[in-house]
Parts: sequence; C-alpha cells; structure tokens
Amino acid sequence: MNMLSMPHVGVLPAGALGTIADVPGVTVGHCTLADGPIQTGVTVVRAHPDDPYRHKVPAATSVINGFGKSIGLVQVEELGVLETPIALTNTFGVAAIAQAQIRAAIASNPEIGREWSTVNPLVFECNDGYLNDIQALAVEDKHYVAAFDAAASGFQRGSVGAGRGMSSFDLKGGIGSASRVVNVAGKDFTVGALVLANFGRLPMLTIDGLPLGRELHRRKQSATTATAAKPEQGSIIMIVATDAPLDSRQLKRLSMRAAAGLARTGSVYGHGSGDIALAFSTAWTVPHEGDFVATPPLLSDARLDPLFHACADSVEQAIIDALWSATSVTGRDAHTRLSLLEAAPDLEQLLKRHTA
Amino acid sequence: MNMLSMPHVGVLPAGALGTIADVPGVTVGHCTLADGPIQTGVTVVRAHPDDPYRHKVPAATSVINGFGKSIGLVQVEELGVLETPIALTNTFGVAAIAQAQIRAAIASNPEIGREWSTVNPLVFECNDGYLNDIQALAVEDKHYVAAFDAAASGFQRGSVGAGRGMSSFDLKGGIGSASRVVNVAGKDFTVGALVLANFGRLPMLTIDGLPLGRELHRRKQSATTATAAKPEQGSIIMIVATDAPLDSRQLKRLSMRAAAGLARTGSVYGHGSGDIALAFSTAWTVPHEGDFVATPPLLSDARLDPLFHACADSVEQAIIDALWSATSVTGRDAHTRLSLLEAAPDLEQLLKRHTA
Amino acid sequence: MNMLSMPHVGVLPAGALGTIADVPGVTVGHCTLADGPIQTGVTVVRAHPDDPYRHKVPAATSVINGFGKSIGLVQVEELGVLETPIALTNTFGVAAIAQAQIRAAIASNPEIGREWSTVNPLVFECNDGYLNDIQALAVEDKHYVAAFDAAASGFQRGSVGAGRGMSSFDLKGGIGSASRVVNVAGKDFTVGALVLANFGRLPMLTIDGLPLGRELHRRKQSATTATAAKPEQGSIIMIVATDAPLDSRQLKRLSMRAAAGLARTGSVYGHGSGDIALAFSTAWTVPHEGDFVATPPLLSDARLDPLFHACADSVEQAIIDALWSATSVTGRDAHTRLSLLEAAPDLEQLLKRHTA
Amino acid sequence: MNMLSMPHVGVLPAGALGTIADVPGVTVGHCTLADGPIQTGVTVVRAHPDDPYRHKVPAATSVINGFGKSIGLVQVEELGVLETPIALTNTFGVAAIAQAQIRAAIASNPEIGREWSTVNPLVFECNDGYLNDIQALAVEDKHYVAAFDAAASGFQRGSVGAGRGMSSFDLKGGIGSASRVVNVAGKDFTVGALVLANFGRLPMLTIDGLPLGRELHRRKQSATTATAAKPEQGSIIMIVATDAPLDSRQLKRLSMRAAAGLARTGSVYGHGSGDIALAFSTAWTVPHEGDFVATPPLLSDARLDPLFHACADSVEQAIIDALWSATSVTGRDAHTRLSLLEAAPDLEQLLKRHTA
Repeated sequence: MNMLSMPHVGVLPAGALGTIADVPGVTVGHCTLADGPIQTGVTVVRAHPDDPYRHKVPAATSVINGFGKSIGLVQVEELGVLETPIALTNTFGVAAIAQAQIRAAIASNPEIGREWSTVNPLVFECNDGYLNDIQALAVEDKHYVAAFDAAASGFQRGSVGAGRGMSSFDLKGGIGSASRVVNVAGKDFTVGALVLANFGRLPMLTIDGLPLGRELHRRKQSATTATAAKPEQGSIIMIVATDAPLDSRQLKRLSMRAAAGLARTGSVYGHGSGDIALAFSTAWTVPHEGDFVATPPLLSDARLDPLFHACADSVEQAIIDALWSATSVTGRDAHTRLSLLEAAPDLEQLLKRHTA
Repeated sequence: MNMLSMPHVGVLPAGALGTIADVPGVTVGHCTLADGPIQTGVTVVRAHPDDPYRHKVPAATSVINGFGKSIGLVQVEELGVLETPIALTNTFGVAAIAQAQIRAAIASNPEIGREWSTVNPLVFECNDGYLNDIQALAVEDKHYVAAFDAAASGFQRGSVGAGRGMSSFDLKGGIGSASRVVNVAGKDFTVGALVLANFGRLPMLTIDGLPLGRELHRRKQSATTATAAKPEQGSIIMIVATDAPLDSRQLKRLSMRAAAGLARTGSVYGHGSGDIALAFSTAWTVPHEGDFVATPPLLSDARLDPLFHACADSVEQAIIDALWSATSVTGRDAHTRLSLLEAAPDLEQLLKRHTA
Repeated sequence: MNMLSMPHVGVLPAGALGTIADVPGVTVGHCTLADGPIQTGVTVVRAHPDDPYRHKVPAATSVINGFGKSIGLVQVEELGVLETPIALTNTFGVAAIAQAQIRAAIASNPEIGREWSTVNPLVFECNDGYLNDIQALAVEDKHYVAAFDAAASGFQRGSVGAGRGMSSFDLKGGIGSASRVVNVAGKDFTVGALVLANFGRLPMLTIDGLPLGRELHRRKQSATTATAAKPEQGSIIMIVATDAPLDSRQLKRLSMRAAAGLARTGSVYGHGSGDIALAFSTAWTVPHEGDFVATPPLLSDARLDPLFHACADSVEQAIIDALWSATSVTGRDAHTRLSLLEAAPDLEQLLKRHTA
Repeated sequence: MNMLSMPHVGVLPAGALGTIADVPGVTVGHCTLADGPIQTGVTVVRAHPDDPYRHKVPAATSVINGFGKSIGLVQVEELGVLETPIALTNTFGVAAIAQAQIRAAIASNPEIGREWSTVNPLVFECNDGYLNDIQALAVEDKHYVAAFDAAASGFQRGSVGAGRGMSSFDLKGGIGSASRVVNVAGKDFTVGALVLANFGRLPMLTIDGLPLGRELHRRKQSATTATAAKPEQGSIIMIVATDAPLDSRQLKRLSMRAAAGLARTGSVYGHGSGDIALAFSTAWTVPHEGDFVATPPLLSDARLDPLFHACADSVEQAIIDALWSATSVTGRDAHTRLSLLEAAPDLEQLLKRHTA
C-alpha cells in the first residue's frame, strides 16, 4: 500500500468509504486470475442485496465512444432498468460471463426461458490483451460466481478482478472507485463511481489538472511528439451509482457527466477506446410483476447540478484511484506494466511542484 | 412443399432467387438442431466470400423496439461496419455464438487479441422458448461453424437454422427471405431481406393487407378480444442487404424502412418484442488497414425512395415467406406450432375472398 | 360533409368524439388562411387548460424520418416535457409561430428571459408549397393567437388550420384525428391522435389494408410504374395524447408506434418526408418550480401493448380521417388538390369490392 | 487589446491565424447590437464562399446537453449536411434569424418553396438575458444579412456578434476561436473551433488545468461552497471545422470530442446549459442535384485520434480565447460583466504561480 496520499479532486466531500459502496446497498466483488500469461478477472457490482431480476434497478447508459463489445445495452436503453448484477471482464470474456448471468438468473427464477420470459445479461469489457493472454479465453462461469459471492461494501481496487490485466496511460490501470456527497433540496445524496480503467496514452495523463504525463513521457523518450505515438486503443467503463431518486431519463443525463470527469484525466475519447458510462439509482426499484410502478418523488431536473458535479468528480477521482491503487503486473510474453507509483517514485514532488 | 403460391406484395419485381441472395455475393447457411425438446439452431448471413474482418462491410442498425439481447450493435453504431458474418440464434445462445465468432476471427487473423486489436462479434437473437428447451443451452461453437460452412446462395427457409423453434402469430415462424429490384439513376439495384420471425399474435396477422388473423382467431376462440390476449413477447430480426452504393448513414435510413414492412404484417412493435433491423451494402468494403477509405460514388439521398420502397416490401414479403415456408414443429413438453398452411388449409380461398 | 361512413380500422373502439379530444383536457384550435394563393394556417393542440409553462406535460418524440424543420425537439428529448402548446404550421411559418409562442409565454410569465429562465417553443411543420404561396411568409403571430384562442374539444378536421394547404397521396390532405379506448390493468385509458398529413404518392395509398391507390392511379395514368413517379416529398406530423400514466421514456416508446399506423396507410417514410411523432400524457404534470416531482403510479412497461396497439390504430385512422374530412382546395397558380371523395366518387363501391 | 499572452493549451501547434479560419475557406462575420439595454448580436460562420444550398457541406452534431432551442438539428442528423451558413444568436432571436436564412436561400434559389423543395435553416443560440433585454426581440433579418456580408477570414472575438451579451463563469463570455494542426497519414490537417461561450459558474473556472475560479471566487465571497451557488444556466455552442476528408458519421465522432475540451474548462454540462457541438468538413461537398455523390478518399477511422485531440484542444483553447478576448459590458438594468482580465488584474501572476 502506498503512503502517498492521493489528491482529492474538486471541492466536494467524499463519503465515508470513498468508494461506490458509499451508496447504501451497493457492493462489489472480484475474482482475480493471475497465473503467468493469464492476468485477468471478473468484477461484479450489485445495486442491492435482493434478486435483481425481481427488483429491477432504474438505470441508463451513455455511449461516449462505442468502440466496445459490451452486451445488454440495447435493452437498458429501451426499458431503463437493470435485471442482473453489473459484470466487468475482458473483451473475450463477455460471452462466458453473459452465459453465467443467464444461468444464475435461471437458478433463482426457473421460469426464465419458459414461455416468454427472458433475462438481459449486462457485461462490460475492456481489452487486457497487452498483459493477458486473452486468446486463452480463460474467464469462465465459475469466476462470475466467485466474484458475485465475494461482493461486499469493502473491496479492493487496483490490479484486481476485471482490472487485473488492464493498462492506463501506458501504466498499470484497473479498478478504481470514489464517491462524493452533495446536498440537494435539504437532503444529502451520494454519488459513487467505479471504473475499469484501460485507456489513455502516457503523454495525456493529467492528475487534478496537472499534465504529469508530459513530464513522465519526457523522461522515457525525448523526440516523440504526442500525436506521433500510437493511437489510444484502450477503453474505460464507468459505473455510477446514486441514492438520489432519479428515473431512467435523468440517469441518462447523469451518466453523460462521466464524460466530463474522464476528459479531465486527459482522455479525448480515443477512436479505439470503448468509453461507456452506466448510471443507476438505488432509491427505488421496478418490480418484475404488477400493473403499476410507484416511484418516489423524483428530484426536479433543475436540482440535478450538484449530482452532475458529483458524478464528474467521482469519475475523475475513481480514475486516479485506479492508478494509485494499482500494483505493477507482469503478464504474457514478459509484458510488464508499472504502477504509477513505481514509475514515478518522485510523484509527491511532482504533484507539489505543480500545486505550490 | 406447399403448392399454394405465396402472394407477391406490392408492385416491385423480385430478383431471380426471390431471396436475400439475389444481392450478389450474399450467402446464407443454417445449422438446425431438432431433437425432441431441442428445437433451435443457428443461421449465418455472409455479405461476401472474403474475410469479413479484413474487408469490412458498411452497415447500420435501427432498433425499433429494444427488448432484445443482441451483441455487437454498439460498435456497429459507432463505426458503421461489420467485421464478422451476421449470426442469428436463440436468446440464450448469443454468448456461445459470439465466442464462436471470436474464435473464427482469431483463427483467420491471429493478431486479434494481441496488443490492441479486437473483433466485434455480431449475434442477433429471438426467444424460441415455447418450442425449444432454451434452458438447455444447446447451441454450441460447432453449430456456428456448421452454419458458416453451409452458407450458399441457395438456402432453405422456414423451420430451419435459427428459425427452427420460432413462432409467429401463434403459428410456426422462422426464417423468411425475399428481394426486390429497383431502377435508380438508370441502374438496377437489388434489396434483399432475411428475417428471423418470432413475433405477433394471431389476431393481428395481416397478409398483403388482409386481416386474416382475425378470421383464424375467430375460429379458435369466440369471446376473446384482441387486446385481452396475452402480450406479444416475441421478436423479429430483419437483415437487409443491397448492392446499391450507400454509406452507413444511408444504410441506417434504409434499415429504418424495415419497420414499415413489419407494420404491414400486423405488428405494432409489441413491448416484449425485440424488433431490430440491420442493413448492409455489398457495393464497397472498408479495408482493415490503410490510411484512407475509398468509397464508390454514393447514391444521392434524394434517390433513395425506390430503395426504401424495396426494403419495406422485401421485409413484408420475407415475413410472409417465413410463414409460408415453415413446417409444423413439435418441441419441448409436447408444445406444437402449426404452420400457416396447416392451420388454414383453406388459405387459398381466404386470400381469394379478400382479393376478389 | 360526406355521407359515406369512414372505415373503422382495427378492432379497438373509438372514444366518444372519435378525436384526440377524447383524452380529457385536450383541445384543438385552428386559424385558417384561405385567400387566393395563400392557402395555409396554424393549428394548436393544448394538453390541458392551464399554463403549460408552469405545469409541464411529460412528453417524448420519435423522429421516424428527420427531413424536417421543426423547432423544440432537442429540449423535449433532454427534459421530457412540453412547456408550450403544440403548434403546427407550414415549413416557412415555423419561425413566426415560435416567436408567437415566446411572446405568449412571456405575457403569462414575465420572468422568462430575465436572468436565466427561458421557454422552449415547439412548432412542427409540413411543406404546403404546392397549394400555398409559402414564399409569401403569410403566417404571423396573430394567427397563432387566433388558433390558441379557438382551442376546444370540438374542432374541425380536413382542409383547416395548418392542414389548409397540405396534400397527401396526390390528394387533398390536412388535419385528421381519431381515438381508441383500451382497458389496461382494469382501467380504461384513451389514446388519441391528431395528424397533419402531407405525405404519400397516390399509388401507395392503402385504406384499411386495401391498396386503393393503385386503382386510382391506374385510372389517371396507365403506363407509369410506382417507382417511376416522382419521389415523395411530403411530411406527416403525428401528435399522440393519452391519459394513461406514463413517463417520458414510456411516451417515447408510445410515439414510435405511430410509425406502424403510418406504414399501414402506404408510407415507407419517404426520403423527403419529415415523419415525426410526439406523444404526451395528461395523467400528471411537472411543476415549473419545486425540488421534487411526484408522479402517479406509472403503468408497468409490460402492460403497454394495448396502448401501443391503440396508438398505431389511432394514427392510421387519423390519416384516413384527414383524407375523408378534406375538401378540395385550389391555391397558387391554379394548383388544385381534389379530396379523396371527389377523386373517387365510387369510393363506397371500391371499399366494398375489397371487403366483400 | 490585452498584453498578457494567453496560455496555449496542450502540445499541438495552432494554425497561422489561431482561429477557425485556419481551415481554408471558412469565414466568420458579426453584427453587434450594443445600445443601452440591447447587448446582443448575430454571428455567421460560412464553410465556403459558394452557395451553401447548392454545395452542401458534410456535417454532424453532438447534443451534449439538450437544454437548448436551436433550430435545424433534426435534418442535419438525418441527412448529414448543412445547406445554409451556421448562425449564432440569442435564444429569442432564433426565429428571426431562421426566417432571414430562409429569405436569403430563396433569394439565391427561387425554386425553394415551390413544389417540394425546402431549405433547412440552422440557428444556434445562448441566452444573453443577463446583460441583454432579450424580451425586446431586437435581433432582426437585417442583422443576419449584415453578419453574413461581414464574413471574412479575419474577424474579432470576445464581446462581439452573438457573443455581445454572453456571460461565462460569471465573467464576460462571448465568441472565442482557436485552431490546431495535426499530421495524419503524411498530410497536415487543420481543426478549428469557434465557440459562443455563455456557460459556467466562477468557482468551476479552470484554465489550462489550473482551478483559477476557486481563487477568484474566494476573493469575491468567503463562506459559499461551490454547490451552494445558483445552478448553471448558460450554454455553449461549439462549431468545429476541419479540412480533413470525413463523412457525416465521422464528423459526429469528431463533434463529440468538443465535450472533452469543454470539460477541461470546468464544465460538468450543467442542467440548464445547452451544450451543443457541430462539426463540418470542407474537404468535399454534396451537390444539390445529381444521382450520385462522389467523396474523396475518407480518412480511416483508425487514423482519427490526432483530429480528436485537435478538436478537444481547439475547443478548450477557444473557450479561453473567448474569456481573454472579451471586454467588459454593461447592459440592461445596469447589469455588468467584467472581463476576465479586468476581474483578475493579476492574472499573469496567478497563472505563473500554478505553472512554476
């Protein structure tokens, strides 16, 4: 664990845990595969402890750049709800994990697939092929089950779960999380973010507004300009949770603000980067059965700005957290990604220099 | 094979084969699983005989009703190309077939998954759970390979491939196909459609404008009104091919016209029906590598009406073809779907009565 | 007024008035300009009798073909509410009517435009340039006021208001309206439609499934094929109202079903046709001020099929109503559009022949 | 003119002029209304010197937050071209300027509005109601003509044209512009941006990564937290031009990257802020007539990253330019907005302190 305290971006306070689990009910679990050329895994985010199929969570997505192979977005867009846990894994693991979600849903609800009922698996992915032998298709059903079973409000970040083999800014990326608390209409609401960070080229890296990547890049190579470097080919998945009472349309608006937090870290939503945000609310659920759906009083759209602010800051902070929490990993073909803290042992000085 | 000739909808002529394969280069293959409670399969549509990853086909989709679990649409929307064959299967087979597409792509292009390159699997689905024991997850990698290998310009329709277990209008649905030829700017262009028809309640069935479903429904039950029936829970996938030189934006416009053909058969895009159209052009390809992409002269948008007309008519005709070509199937739990021709042995008279 | 009773499409019953005003609270007003080469007007649809700015109506749109110059859709898409009455006029009258809506909103709410508050005008259009001297820019502020003031639950259809100069299927088009009542979850709900019909070429005209346009076209000219005719360049605006408790996301789904009703009349959503649907609910409103918005219990998405059905049927019926209600009009340069009933004096026989 | 040189964001070089006019052919004109309570205007961006209706420019938009009243976006989305100059004005001036565009198009192309041809006006807006008596509806047809006639490659920025009454970060906003040059596939391409900046609250202001707004805000008031401030209610319009050969789909991708540049200045896309980007290419045009459209070889999507980078940097720089170029303005009710340079006379020191 590193001793250097991570910069706190912005002026909004974090929640008690400083993670997405500050949103009551939200839990996260990992299953990490780390064995030689296999450096990958599965991460599961649960919105609440109940059966997600019977108690569907209002949700929406923003596809900021659609170079991605996620499954489940079409139906979330149409119906505005989740009906499985959210799963994250590597690009070629999507199918196996989707199958695992279907099996898990059938196990709890045997009528699924009988007559007309179905379930919408929801799996996001980034490509960890630099560190991980992704062609090995190592991710299996059991890894989803393990990640699901491990879900808790306390969870690790960095080179774990789906984040095991991910790279960001030519450094070790992975899982990051953060939260912010805002007061709206006299009540405190929490916005939490969890990211699977696998995007960015080093020269673009910006931490709390400081272009540290340029300095780190200069050290590595002198005569290369930013644009001459090879194109960004990573991705980032940004999961945003809130306990504020929002409906799917409003959650779509909220999810779009992940793009602001992402941009502040240096991303320009590169061509090859699947940049996708999903936001959900834990304030109410849509029951699987019944004629009517009761919503709590929803926040007025005119009151959403603090939540938008919190979303952008949480996502930016979560990305920094992914870099901060990551540990260096060596994977297939002796490919290695150094953690930010290893790559820049003088990080504290670098940050001070800029904020003096 | 039925003797009764199928009505030809509209005034536009069909191509020589009367299927999507009238678009030069397009082939279709099936793998049918028909064994007791397992009544399902895989259908593959190939846009051309070359490697689809290295020679990507311009394409676009219209999600008319997004109650569906297809995979691959996010990236098609962003990049406007296909890079695998189009696969159709049952709802819970999507993952297996996506995995099969990944394996096939890697086999041809071993660099996929190394460094940063990936491949976007594209699998559409309908829920055949009435006839098929979908929980058995019977569809496997090898069935995709078999369907791919079987692809030819001559192919069966009806209760075959992905259509094996599908139902439409409470009758046997499945695979249907049709084509239309139109003259635009002095040249003949073909539009072909292939549908996986698994939608519709009997009272809504409309053939060439004739509300035959009401009559057939009356025979079955007297006192039920149309709206009292159970909700539509099927789906329809509509694949539209053309040799007209269109780009992705124009193909999106073309794909939307599938909604018109679908509506004419009685559909109101039911809540539980995943109604998705994809259109592609065979007039040019996007090479996997290279700095620039040369397109042929594209048709002016102001010249698209005949193609829109041909798309709507082809899709309507393809749906009728699916009903016409289908054979009755008995599947899990002795569930049976009668073909239209078996359910209405006096179909010829019924049609004549309306067109006299 | 014609004696020939209009066919009732589908099996669902209409409301008492058979118009959009069957949705309680909805009123419609026209201002018709008919003076030599000026054949145009304004139509206003009000969702309720109160100030629409202070009591915003949940709403959403579906752009089926975006060849159109409407104003206001961007904000409806983002916020999911209307804050003015809905106005319809000719293509080049949009600006004048938008300005009139702004003036009317300021008159009622003088704070609009002070500090930060604004109002979102909402004006739809079709191009009546065949009959109307649209270049004269004859539509003015006062015509909006007159149409607004005339709004009532009883209102004329046909060649009135914004429909004065419109053409459909090479016949006289204009304003049409219809309604359907469905029982959902033990309650009766009404769906009403009002269309501004200015689309379609004669050979495509289909009434209740019958391809009457082919017959009428044959009479006019013998050797022309459908596709050789000049491209469709009209448009149709479809306003859908319901008293069912739906939110904006659900209303977007509902509005999409207008595409099904439209297709059944022969449209393939022609390139040059701005085909746009808007749906709103009168079951609740979003107050202009306040921290929270209370919604009534919303209908479950799984219960929406009868409403989808009612939307498609209402829109189809409203288009037929526009043709049926229209009177022949002669406008600029002696251009004349015959009403359907004048163009086909044997319409009763034609319809009977097909339905015998 | 201020002496303090503006920070250059990022590492990419600017073009010769440092404005959108670095894209060959692009010109900009203003008409400024500055008379007591009337502080507003019109800005026109022309893509090329020819008739835009006969030589349509490929284009696309990204609606980042749709709280806005622009006109013309529906058709740009469908057809992917511009057919008028781009106009910017105040919220309640949209209608007058749209009318002016229609009149100008008819003057050049008298067939518009005869038979079926129409023209799609394109007017963007921000609300300048703080400084300007927007209720006076002062913007008229002649102001559009004046701005159009003034279009040149050399043009003023700051408190001019549509920017006259705009505010940003509680400071004087307005028109800003910037450009970047990148080498792609061995060729130099230029990306230029022009913004109408009317967004942002002071505490959020970030210049080149430095949170200057916090410091400036502290000086003004001590005990207010960022979220307690009143909600953001401004807007920003971001026009992006390039000479790179892109089609409409690719330009949509490019326009989305404006969101990254915007975020870096402190925006979280506030609820009440209409944040809209439009991108166009000058590399080719779509002729109004003809059966086919020839495109040049288009850049491969895999080569777009440098352009994405240039778009984000240009937009960020253009926003800073708007603040830098602005002069303080006093308008209606003695409302005053100070320019950044007047509000922070020690700006040079503030910037140095952060970059030391």
